[in-house]
Amino acid sequence: MFKVSVMYPNQAGARFDLGYYRTTHMEIVRQHLQAFGLVKTEVLKGLSGGGGQPAPFVCIGNLYFETADGYEKGVAASGGAIRADIANFTDLTPVRQISEVVAS
Amino acid sequence: MFKVSVMYPNQAGARFDLGYYRTTHMEIVRQHLQAFGLVKTEVLKGLSGGGGQPAPFVCIGNLYFETADGYEKGVAASGGAIRADIANFTDLTPVRQISEVVAS
Repeated sequence: MFKVSVMYPNQAGARFDLGYYRTTHMEIVRQHLQAFGLVKTEVLKGLSGGGGQPAPFVCIGNLYFETADGYEKGVAASGGAIRADIANFTDLTPVRQISEVVAS
Repeated sequence: MFKVSVMYPNQAGARFDLGYYRTTHMEIVRQHLQAFGLVKTEVLKGLSGGGGQPAPFVCIGNLYFETADGYEKGVAASGGAIRADIANFTDLTPVRQISEVVAS
């Protein structure tokens, strides 16, 4: 199993609409990526960095895929539909990581 | 549900023993934190940042807890046993985030 983490940095003054992200945006993501092996999604709301520190990321969206390249193939095939929706919930630039789940 | 992400930055020249981390270290984590509501663990090996970029994190360890404060209470109660084991697999300083799972 593979996991794509899309991490939105916790920056002062930035805009992030968690309600829109977890409902409308994730539905768009599923519509476009299920045919490319998307099997599960997860949305995290950042609470803290531990020890009283702020959370490094305001939100993290996790997408589980059957293959390592399903995410990039699916985003490319969506013709920009997923990326075009980002401005509807944030002005942040996310950090992306594709990982292999090696233990769970 | 709450999720603690321990993210090890992908730095050139740094040491990270994934085999030790996913077996020995995670067993130590479970021994000390199960009594504090740890319900599941997950280990991710960073593959890429997408678009041919390097992965931001060489490894991410995820711990799912029943409560938001279970991780910090458990680590404190372990008396340093978990932190003392970190030098056995890495010289990296991890980025930590405590999140609420708001959709899955």
